[in-house]
Amino acid sequence: MPVTSQRGDSMPESPIRKLVPLANKAKARGIKVYHLNIGQPDLKTPQVAIDAIRNVDRAVLEYTPSDGIRSLRSKLASYYHRFNIDVTEENIIVTTGGSEAVNFAFMSCLDPGDEIIVPEPAYANYTAFAIAAGAVIKPILSKIDDGFALPPVEEFEALITPRTKGILICNPNNPTGYLYTRAEMNAIRDLVKKHDLYLFSDEVYREFCYTGAPYISAFHLDDIENNVVLFDSVSKRYSECGIRIGALVTKNKKVLENVMKFCQARLSPPLLGQIAAEASIDTPESYMLDMYNEYVERRKFLIDGLNRIPGVYSPIPMGAFYTVARLPVDDADKFCTWLLSDFEYENQTIMLAPASGFYTTPGIGKNEVRLAYVLEKETLKKALFVLQKALEVYPGNTERMNS
Amino acid sequence: MPVTSQRGDSMPESPIRKLVPLANKAKARGIKVYHLNIGQPDLKTPQVAIDAIRNVDRAVLEYTPSDGIRSLRSKLASYYHRFNIDVTEENIIVTTGGSEAVNFAFMSCLDPGDEIIVPEPAYANYTAFAIAAGAVIKPILSKIDDGFALPPVEEFEALITPRTKGILICNPNNPTGYLYTRAEMNAIRDLVKKHDLYLFSDEVYREFCYTGAPYISAFHLDDIENNVVLFDSVSKRYSECGIRIGALVTKNKKVLENVMKFCQARLSPPLLGQIAAEASIDTPESYMLDMYNEYVERRKFLIDGLNRIPGVYSPIPMGAFYTVARLPVDDADKFCTWLLSDFEYENQTIMLAPASGFYTTPGIGKNEVRLAYVLEKETLKKALFVLQKALEVYPGNTERMNS
Repeated sequence: MPVTSQRGDSMPESPIRKLVPLANKAKARGIKVYHLNIGQPDLKTPQVAIDAIRNVDRAVLEYTPSDGIRSLRSKLASYYHRFNIDVTEENIIVTTGGSEAVNFAFMSCLDPGDEIIVPEPAYANYTAFAIAAGAVIKPILSKIDDGFALPPVEEFEALITPRTKGILICNPNNPTGYLYTRAEMNAIRDLVKKHDLYLFSDEVYREFCYTGAPYISAFHLDDIENNVVLFDSVSKRYSECGIRIGALVTKNKKVLENVMKFCQARLSPPLLGQIAAEASIDTPESYMLDMYNEYVERRKFLIDGLNRIPGVYSPIPMGAFYTVARLPVDDADKFCTWLLSDFEYENQTIMLAPASGFYTTPGIGKNEVRLAYVLEKETLKKALFVLQKALEVYPGNTERMNS
Repeated sequence: MPVTSQRGDSMPESPIRKLVPLANKAKARGIKVYHLNIGQPDLKTPQVAIDAIRNVDRAVLEYTPSDGIRSLRSKLASYYHRFNIDVTEENIIVTTGGSEAVNFAFMSCLDPGDEIIVPEPAYANYTAFAIAAGAVIKPILSKIDDGFALPPVEEFEALITPRTKGILICNPNNPTGYLYTRAEMNAIRDLVKKHDLYLFSDEVYREFCYTGAPYISAFHLDDIENNVVLFDSVSKRYSECGIRIGALVTKNKKVLENVMKFCQARLSPPLLGQIAAEASIDTPESYMLDMYNEYVERRKFLIDGLNRIPGVYSPIPMGAFYTVARLPVDDADKFCTWLLSDFEYENQTIMLAPASGFYTTPGIGKNEVRLAYVLEKETLKKALFVLQKALEVYPGNTERMNS
C-alpha cells in the first residue's frame, strides 16, 4: 500500500472530533447531550436568504467568476463601508467559506518554513492551514488571568526571526471572545510596519461586540494597507454556516494576483451560496438587533452561571459567542471524554470543547474548555446545572482532591 | 510591502485566463464571440435539482458533516454501482467540486518533492494543485498523430524514481476526449502494482462515452484497490458546475483518514449544492439519454467540420466533450489572441483554448487548441465557419506561408 504524506499524517485531529463518536454513543443510550462545543448558531437564517434560494430562477446552475459574482463583491464592499472599512469590490475575492480565505492567503503569502506569530489560544484550523502550506505557527501565550489580553509587544518582538512573514489575529476572538483594544491594535500596527509583516486579520465576528468598546479593524490602522489581509465570512452573522461563503479582502495587488491563481484552479465559489449571501446583506436591521440582544442575554447568563459554579472561572468575553473557562479538573480532555462516556444526570450530559485543541504549545490550557453560547437560555440553564452536577462527582475534581 | 510566496508566484496563469479580457473588449466592440474554450455545458440543469433547491425547507442553513450528508454519500454509492464500481458510502467523501478532491488527495498523499506521472496534454489545474502541494508533475507525452493514445508503458517506467508516488489519469480525457482501452488500463494497473503507486483517476466524464467501447474505471482493475483514488464531480453530467459538488472515492483507509483532516479544517462542503446533487442522482433516464444524443450529434458535427477546414486535423474523440485539434498556425497562443483582438467576420469571432496550457513541457502543442462542444449545433456551425474564415486571413497561417 503506498504511503500517505507526512504533511497529512502530522495534521492533528481536533480533540472535539475525537469526542463526536462518544456523543453519538451517549445519544444512542438515550442521553440528551447539550452541545456547548460548536460554533453553529441555532438562530434562523434570515428570511431574505431563504427566499432568494426558494426563488432561484436559473435554468443552468453554472460556474460563477472565480473571484465571485460581481454584484456580491460590490454589496460586500458597501457592507464593509458601514464599518468604515474603505475597500472596493476590486479588493474583495469571494471564497468558499472563511476557511478558504485563510488557506489561499497562506498559500499565496507563505512558503514552507515561513513563520507566523499567532496569539493563543487560537482557532484550531489555522494550524491545519499552516501545515497545508508548510508554514510554522509561532504561538504567543495570552492568559486567562489577564482575560486573554494581547501579550506585551516585546513578547512578539522576541519571536521575530528572518523567516517571520506575518502576525495572525482573530478579533473579536474565537475561542476567547476577547476584543482587541485600540492600544493593542496600535502596538500590532507598529510591529507590522517596523518588520514589514503581513497582518492576517480574521474579523468574522465583528457584528458580535457587546461592551460598547469599539471594534478596530486591521483596515482602520494607518499606513499598513498593503500589509493587511482580512478574512471574512457570512456564516456567523447570518446563521448560514452551510452556504460556505467567505471573503478575502486586501489592497495588496500582488497578494490579490496570487490568490486569484488559487481561485482559478478551483474554478468557482458556490453559486447558490453566493445568491443566499448577496440577499443576506439586505437582512433587516431588526433581525440583526434581535440576534445581538439574544447573544447579549445568553452571554450574561452563561458567564454569570459559570462563575457561580465552585472552582469555575470565566473572564467576561467582549465579543464573538465563545468563552474559555477554567474548570477545577485535572485534565479537560479527560473530563470532556468522561462527560460523554461515564456521566449522566437525569439522562442529560454536556459536550464541551477541550481548550487543548486551541493551543499549539503542549500542556497549556489543560484545565480549560471552550463554551459556545449558541443555544437558547433555557437550554444553557439546563446545561449549566448539568455541568455543576458533573463537577460534583467527577473523580478528577482538583478542588475536592486538594481539600 | 511583504513579499508573496514563491509557490504562488510560480503558479502559471492559464493562457485561457489571459484571453478573457480580450474577449470582453471584443464584446464591448459589438462582436459576437463564440465560446469554444469552456467546459461549462449549455444544457439545462435537471429539473429535479432545480426543484430541490426551490423547495428547500430549512430554517437554518447549517454546516453538514465534513465528509458530506450521509444520504448523498449513500446515493453516490448506488450511482457508482450502476457502473460496477463496488464501493460503499464509507469509501466516499463529498468534496467542494472535483477540484477539492484533487487538492485533498495531493495534500494527503504527496509531500514536497514527491513526483506523479501524468500523460499530457492534461487538465491544466492538476499542475496548480501539484504546486500547492509542492509535488512535481512528470509529464509523459501523448501525441495527436496517435489519437492521444496512452504512450507505451516503457515510457512510464523510464520516469519512475524513488520519489515517484503515483500516476494520474483522466478517463475519458479532458482535453483530448481519449478513452483508455482495456489493454492500456491493464498496463497502468501492472505498473501501479509493481511499484506500489497511487493511481489517481479522474473519471468525471464517465457518462460521455460515444463509441460503444467500454469505460474502464480504475476500480475495475484487479488487486490494486488500496492504490486507487478516484475523483468525481456532478458538474458535467448534470450541467450544474456552479453547485461545487464532487467526491473523492477510495478504499484506502489511511488516505480517507488523512483526507478527512483536510475536510474537517474546511468544516463542510456546501449544503445547498449537496441538496441539488442528491436530487440530481434521480435525474430521469430520458434527460441523460437526450443529453447523450445531443453530444453525439455535436461531436460528429464538430469533428467532421474541423477536418474539412484546410490544414486542420482533429482525431475523433471517444469521450468527454472536448477535442484537441491541430491548426495550420505558427503559434496557437498568438492565433487565439489575434482572433479576439484583430479579427472579426461579419461581427463574429471565436474563443479557443490554446493547448499550451495543457502541456507542462514547454514548446509542445504549439499549433494545437482545445475545443469544447458544449454549444448547440447551429452555433457550432457558425463558429466553424468563422474559424475557417479566420484561418484564411491569419498572417501566421503555415499552410499559406509554406506554399
